[in-house]
Amino acid sequence: MIDDFPNPIVTTDVVVLTLKDGVLRLLLAQRAADAAVAPGVWTLPGGFVHMDKDRSLEDTVRRVFRTKTGGEVAYLEQLCTFGSTDRDPRGWSLSVAYLALVPEHKVTGLDEQRTRWVPVRPCPDLPFDHRAIVTQALERVRGKAAYSSLPAFLLPDTFTLPQLMAVYEAVLDQQLDQSTFRRKVAEQGMIVKARGARAHTGAGRPAALYKLSRPALQDFGRVLLSTRD
Amino acid sequence: MIDDFPNPIVTTDVVVLTLKDGVLRLLLAQRAADAAVAPGVWTLPGGFVHMDKDRSLEDTVRRVFRTKTGGEVAYLEQLCTFGSTDRDPRGWSLSVAYLALVPEHKVTGLDEQRTRWVPVRPCPDLPFDHRAIVTQALERVRGKAAYSSLPAFLLPDTFTLPQLMAVYEAVLDQQLDQSTFRRKVAEQGMIVKARGARAHTGAGRPAALYKLSRPALQDFGRVLLSTRD
Repeated sequence: MIDDFPNPIVTTDVVVLTLKDGVLRLLLAQRAADAAVAPGVWTLPGGFVHMDKDRSLEDTVRRVFRTKTGGEVAYLEQLCTFGSTDRDPRGWSLSVAYLALVPEHKVTGLDEQRTRWVPVRPCPDLPFDHRAIVTQALERVRGKAAYSSLPAFLLPDTFTLPQLMAVYEAVLDQQLDQSTFRRKVAEQGMIVKARGARAHTGAGRPAALYKLSRPALQDFGRVLLSTRD
Repeated sequence: MIDDFPNPIVTTDVVVLTLKDGVLRLLLAQRAADAAVAPGVWTLPGGFVHMDKDRSLEDTVRRVFRTKTGGEVAYLEQLCTFGSTDRDPRGWSLSVAYLALVPEHKVTGLDEQRTRWVPVRPCPDLPFDHRAIVTQALERVRGKAAYSSLPAFLLPDTFTLPQLMAVYEAVLDQQLDQSTFRRKVAEQGMIVKARGARAHTGAGRPAALYKLSRPALQDFGRVLLSTRD
């Protein structure tokens, strides 16, 4: 039965977002110069499922991410699977797309020749259906920002309230009212004070540092808690 | 490169829900008696991508549905892709799971020997990871019922207000307050009166018939409008 129906090409592609210099950025990787399709072109990082190494699709994504960046993602969630005859010139192909959030300082092993962070708005030109994948990732992360602590996974483990508001503004692509934002954050029990810590960010009084509360962390079954310890 | 990485088995599985006798029901299909794995077992309807016939994953799902039921789905949305070494004894396999809603009267070609509707709560025993897929489908449909007209796709094109409330109660698995429900439906502009039509359901005054408003229909990009004309 399996032989009767040869299987499509299966890859995973991952939309990796970070906040850098106050701007929401997307990770691109350059395809090999001798790639059969789109050689040398900048695309979403991705790769084939290696059936001998990966026990699950998530293993594939994590391996791809680790290989391209030397880091670990802080938050990973599946977006959608794109599959059709015409999305890849090699034939019937299927890509399981993921969304990953990562704080900038956690990605230290980037190969600067082959990877780069680019602003996600406006979305850069990308081959295949990668722009559609990015669009879906932005919708997902904006949608979840409206009711959850998701954007905080773009920050270091401890952060100031102005940093938290800045990351929401970057994700939502809109300015927020400071007092409304602080009230909502307090109501939702999203953050707790990080014991003893204060950030010295300028000439004024040092700002209080916060971290995500345990419920806010637990909201996300897919969170890789180990990266936040 | 493709030859270096042989591809996993790719299937689609679909959680088909309908409302029958006031109960939310799930469509099961019996596997062939000579199937290599789980012969004769009742499972979610599913099948391989036929690369020669299907232009996209949605084509695969629609073909599977048509083959097993003789009908067309009223609403179709992708749920999630499950992929790992151990979900299928045949090896590394990947299933792209879909949620489909269908009004009972639209499914007239069921092979009664090989398909059946079973109550979805409690979830029946199912092989592979099909229970996890059903759980995810129920979460999705319940979640969307809280803010959208999705459950109405389980009804005929025209329906009474009591029928509409009953379908929300079946999906949410809880009793609703009639006046609150009617107020919310009115506020959201979800339905409009179906011109001239009234339902004779009992001895009393005939009940007004409604249909989904155009905005409510358009909320769902994936709706196959043709089935509701």
